[in-house]
Amino acid sequence: MADTWSLVESPFRIATAKAYEGLFTQGSGYLHVRGSLEEHLEGAPQNTAYTRMPASVTSEKFREVKVQWGTYVPGLFGRHPLLNHEMINLPFFLDLVPVVGGEKLDMELSRIRDYRRELLLRTAVLRRTLVWQTRQGAEVQVTFERFASAARPSLFVQRMTLSADRSVTVALRAGIDGDVRTNGYDHFTAIAVDRDGPRGVACRLTTDAGDDVRLATRLRVPADSWAYDGRARGGWITGRLALAAGLPVTVEKLTAVATSRDVAPAEPAAALQAVADRSYESLEAEHAAVWTERWARSDVVVEGDDRSQLALRASVYHLLRSHVAGDPRVAIDAKGYAGEAYWGRFFWDTEMYLLPFFLYTDPPRARTLVDFRVQSLPGAMANAAEYGYAGARYAWESDSRGRECCPNWPYRDHEVHVTADVVYAMLHYARAAEADYLAGPAGQVLLETARYWMQRMDWRPGEGRPSLLGVMGPDEYTPISNNNAYTNRMVSLALAAAAAHPAAPPDEAKSFAAAAAGLPVLRGLDGVLVLQCEDFDRLAEPRFDCLWRDRTRPLASQVSQERLYRSKCLKQADVLMMMLQFAGEFSDAEVRRAWDYYLPYTTHDSSLSAGIHAILAARLGLAEEAWRFWRQSAEIDLDVAHGGAAEGVHIAGAGANWQVAVLGFAGMATAMQSDGLHLDPRPPQAWSRLAFPIVWKGCPAYVDITPDKTTVANRGAQALRVDVGGERREISAGATATFPALQRRRAGGGV
Amino acid sequence: MADTWSLVESPFRIATAKAYEGLFTQGSGYLHVRGSLEEHLEGAPQNTAYTRMPASVTSEKFREVKVQWGTYVPGLFGRHPLLNHEMINLPFFLDLVPVVGGEKLDMELSRIRDYRRELLLRTAVLRRTLVWQTRQGAEVQVTFERFASAARPSLFVQRMTLSADRSVTVALRAGIDGDVRTNGYDHFTAIAVDRDGPRGVACRLTTDAGDDVRLATRLRVPADSWAYDGRARGGWITGRLALAAGLPVTVEKLTAVATSRDVAPAEPAAALQAVADRSYESLEAEHAAVWTERWARSDVVVEGDDRSQLALRASVYHLLRSHVAGDPRVAIDAKGYAGEAYWGRFFWDTEMYLLPFFLYTDPPRARTLVDFRVQSLPGAMANAAEYGYAGARYAWESDSRGRECCPNWPYRDHEVHVTADVVYAMLHYARAAEADYLAGPAGQVLLETARYWMQRMDWRPGEGRPSLLGVMGPDEYTPISNNNAYTNRMVSLALAAAAAHPAAPPDEAKSFAAAAAGLPVLRGLDGVLVLQCEDFDRLAEPRFDCLWRDRTRPLASQVSQERLYRSKCLKQADVLMMMLQFAGEFSDAEVRRAWDYYLPYTTHDSSLSAGIHAILAARLGLAEEAWRFWRQSAEIDLDVAHGGAAEGVHIAGAGANWQVAVLGFAGMATAMQSDGLHLDPRPPQAWSRLAFPIVWKGCPAYVDITPDKTTVANRGAQALRVDVGGERREISAGATATFPALQRRRAGGGV
Repeated sequence: MADTWSLVESPFRIATAKAYEGLFTQGSGYLHVRGSLEEHLEGAPQNTAYTRMPASVTSEKFREVKVQWGTYVPGLFGRHPLLNHEMINLPFFLDLVPVVGGEKLDMELSRIRDYRRELLLRTAVLRRTLVWQTRQGAEVQVTFERFASAARPSLFVQRMTLSADRSVTVALRAGIDGDVRTNGYDHFTAIAVDRDGPRGVACRLTTDAGDDVRLATRLRVPADSWAYDGRARGGWITGRLALAAGLPVTVEKLTAVATSRDVAPAEPAAALQAVADRSYESLEAEHAAVWTERWARSDVVVEGDDRSQLALRASVYHLLRSHVAGDPRVAIDAKGYAGEAYWGRFFWDTEMYLLPFFLYTDPPRARTLVDFRVQSLPGAMANAAEYGYAGARYAWESDSRGRECCPNWPYRDHEVHVTADVVYAMLHYARAAEADYLAGPAGQVLLETARYWMQRMDWRPGEGRPSLLGVMGPDEYTPISNNNAYTNRMVSLALAAAAAHPAAPPDEAKSFAAAAAGLPVLRGLDGVLVLQCEDFDRLAEPRFDCLWRDRTRPLASQVSQERLYRSKCLKQADVLMMMLQFAGEFSDAEVRRAWDYYLPYTTHDSSLSAGIHAILAARLGLAEEAWRFWRQSAEIDLDVAHGGAAEGVHIAGAGANWQVAVLGFAGMATAMQSDGLHLDPRPPQAWSRLAFPIVWKGCPAYVDITPDKTTVANRGAQALRVDVGGERREISAGATATFPALQRRRAGGGV
Repeated sequence: MADTWSLVESPFRIATAKAYEGLFTQGSGYLHVRGSLEEHLEGAPQNTAYTRMPASVTSEKFREVKVQWGTYVPGLFGRHPLLNHEMINLPFFLDLVPVVGGEKLDMELSRIRDYRRELLLRTAVLRRTLVWQTRQGAEVQVTFERFASAARPSLFVQRMTLSADRSVTVALRAGIDGDVRTNGYDHFTAIAVDRDGPRGVACRLTTDAGDDVRLATRLRVPADSWAYDGRARGGWITGRLALAAGLPVTVEKLTAVATSRDVAPAEPAAALQAVADRSYESLEAEHAAVWTERWARSDVVVEGDDRSQLALRASVYHLLRSHVAGDPRVAIDAKGYAGEAYWGRFFWDTEMYLLPFFLYTDPPRARTLVDFRVQSLPGAMANAAEYGYAGARYAWESDSRGRECCPNWPYRDHEVHVTADVVYAMLHYARAAEADYLAGPAGQVLLETARYWMQRMDWRPGEGRPSLLGVMGPDEYTPISNNNAYTNRMVSLALAAAAAHPAAPPDEAKSFAAAAAGLPVLRGLDGVLVLQCEDFDRLAEPRFDCLWRDRTRPLASQVSQERLYRSKCLKQADVLMMMLQFAGEFSDAEVRRAWDYYLPYTTHDSSLSAGIHAILAARLGLAEEAWRFWRQSAEIDLDVAHGGAAEGVHIAGAGANWQVAVLGFAGMATAMQSDGLHLDPRPPQAWSRLAFPIVWKGCPAYVDITPDKTTVANRGAQALRVDVGGERREISAGATATFPALQRRRAGGGV
């Protein structure tokens, strides 16, 4: 049986190096580092200046580079002259380079065998082992290990172990390289790197947003004579180690980071001093203990299908890593702090793709995410004012202040549903975790966004109801449409919530309620089909047969944008996405009609599409389709041959993967749809077991689904109402209930 | 009576300096120079590097600078990293600076009286006179004169005359300043400036498109000792002149330009040598003689209203200046080679706004313009291929190769009507001037553009006819619409012309004809209203009353673009523009219905709007409206207080002004609408006379309209069929016919 707790790279291939670099990103929430090689590669400069353009997100092509360093502290945004605020790539501190007989270790140029690099998901440790056959004839066993300490989020710990088959001298070089760029741009207005004690390097820089960042690194090596090699934007400790034949030598490197944005500012040197006496093993142990606790809250167990199991663990690992505990000044950016592709900004992904995982596994973490939108309300109000509206308008691409940063106007101007998604998430959080949440400052978000909507709507003559005109729904291939179903339904919900809020002035509440009731979700002539927008059926037929020649690549890479825009082609689920959020409101026949109508037009060019389709297919009992879409969604980051996480982790896809397992295959209704815990298990045929912990309205439980039965263990201190496949029970505190499986449609073909 | 042949600036005001700089642009077709001050101003650097962004054309704000040099040779495009090919601003060679007693002449800092600068339209000479009261107490009379030689298009001639009330020494500095940018960008990959003989400077540069440009300038001054001040990108001859009290001294400066793109490459030094013995007066005389001939072909005489007369002459001046005779590799750019705002590119303005003037006053010049599209057909075919289509797709913003350069995708992708406008212009040229034109290479344009349209159209299920979906019509505030009336009618005409072309393969001709017949021009429920596009009436009401607070500024400057895009507001005439081009196809009732419906929604934010409305108002007999829109159109460039021509001349507006006079107030039908010369004069009340020359199908004629009568003089060698207000005559060669005025509606309130 394959190890379902390890993501493995073996052998090294340059073509997939960047994809693994993204996939192997480690992070403590506070500090994230891409899985770059400690010794780096030749011909991969990281200080190339270039101008990334505000291209269409739909069709942007990224620069081809071998590897891309990435060191990110959430919230550190810089000012880009063309692209607005973007997350800053900080100095590279992994740098740890052995040289034997004048030969630098190099995964491309050196003679390497038995290369294996694995991300140990259980402990979030990245480990690389290899045998280096040096040009001088020595065989050197090399092991690199490293982790971003979950116990000390500002601390990063590295270890290198060398062992040779004969006596050799190893020249070592280790330090901090601050000559880096973000999307080709230099965000450092000042940077100084200096020696810091006999075996340390300190770096201090100021960003173009005025933030201070300090890094300190210390080598733990034998106390021989170590020199310092200082450059304008980097500094390295250099020296030599004598390796006796067969005797391993270990080098450790500890790095601490601090910034002026920190909640509790501290000197990185002090952080290093605090662990000066702690061994690598003890630091790893306290770190692993945190991860053990995290996995206990969130591991989704799949038996019978190792690949699905591994994909789910990879998703949950990145979700856990990229969440910044206790800091509502940031959310989770679109690439999970593992790349610069989306500028480190916050999208609707937070609310619709990421929140459910946290909400049902670790509600306090979910609260951080919804609080992010509360604290950034002033930014949203500034956005509204900039567009000439009252109230609050959340940004399509938000920085930490909530300001709109999207440089592409069709999304920036028209993809307005995010403002309602924010309210949906607050309602979701309140219903699932904290009933009086909206009585707090979040209530203001309801009122101010409702005020924005009241001005953003149009009342067309003769219609007697409002419309939302000129919007882009989740399907970004229909850029400017009227009365988009997803948007209207979300806005209607948000307006109704504002109307019902005790703080709403009565006259406003009345108009909110009227608008909420009036905003239409349009139907086709059969009364069953929900229309994506007005006149969707009058768009051109997309003619995929003759225009989409290579189905392995996105349609958008093969036809002009103007053809996408005038055609009935969908980038991703739109009506179906709405039906998933408002599941109780649509009959199976209606969902099935929408499925049958839209699916042939849907390109799934967006990574946000497959997971949603998998959930709906599972719920519709379309086993083959559910399986197919699940496999597609599960592989997005794992498929290194097609880029995978090269530009960053598809973190929304990771959230979707969790949702496919829990909301799809286990058939759990969310708190938006059900007061009690409701399950309707339809796991894929290949899965002999699907089991996961859940928190339902404060009550922890464990769900365990096999072909024969479903058991629900109430791990809480209160009784839990459960409905499995229509059978209702109340499970008392500490008890377990078993529900026999219904003999009926089960989702999934399976391997 | 005011001088209706002079545009006058008096006194100098810094606030309007840039507007006059644009308005006073001089040019020979080959070489164009903005009306910058020879001695320049302090605090107006011309070498500032900045990044002009690909902003929305609709709402772009330009940098505030005091003045902006501009030296342009049509066809010299450079590669801009963000904005695609743009016309290059060449070195400033007007530089001619007197210094008295250490005081540099300066329009802001010096004590100046009797300042008067005038562009003498009759001779295209710019003259400035002033009295300079120097700080040392001298009164110096200064006169600057200059012209771009119409007789020798590569030659620019300057003269400065100084006369003082006491003996003074004048330090003089004159040369070439190559430290210039285009839209903040440096397009010179190499530039060298050197002394060229005792009183000359030579500049040679290479553009980033690989073109060579050479400039040579010679001073004609007393042969005293002259020094040379050379810098990296500039060179100046410096020396001193002794002025005796009351004795004028004259300095002349002759500059010649040559480029590697020239049809007949020549050394600028040779061009200067060729005129070494020619006096300023004789050079001016040969230049003025060309302009006399030009005016005889094109002057539109208005009596009774000096302001209108002056506006018309200013328009005709710029039209004549900016046309590049005999060079079909270029057309007339959107700013008439008088500014960088539209990057020196060619728009549909060429076909729809500029062509008629040339077509009915100087057909060989019109041919250059239509030939431009024939010679750039390969570029148009490359554009089509880039978008995945067969055939030819003309660029919304074309460079000299015909390649699409528009950096803003809504226009670039969707404003496709230009491809049909090009064919309209070819048909117009053929009908008006050269019946067998389409039998030549132009026929290929008909076929290739028709092939593009056949793939660009969609056949929606159940409709049995093609549609053009996802287009932007002339009204750019409805960015992506279906079956835009203007576009469909134009395309239908183009397809029909291709179908009828003898070179069309029969099967293609059949499908062209079917599509031409099928493309709809949609009507409202009343059957009378022509709809701008499908569902135009379902856009939001624009609510100008509460959203357009300051009517003196464009609506686009006061509301967000997304509001424009979802509202029933027009930037400019769209259906009305179509009705003007296809006048015979719509009844007065239909035009009037469209006028009444669309006018309240029309912002006229585009400078292309007022003129078209003036023509239609005149034809509808709406005298007040015709007068109001005429005044608006006539003032666009003259209104220096509101910017006028600061960013370049509104050359399409100049073309529209001619059309208002001839097609509107004289009511001339174009050759697209009438076989014979047809006039229906409705001049404004304030005009006691409207008279102009015309060429009708090869026959020159002169039209003279007064309140009592209209006379038409046949100046050709063949009989001319004329219809004036319904009265038909045939006028034999050399004869004049008089038509009494009809007693009915005449256009115009008037001052």
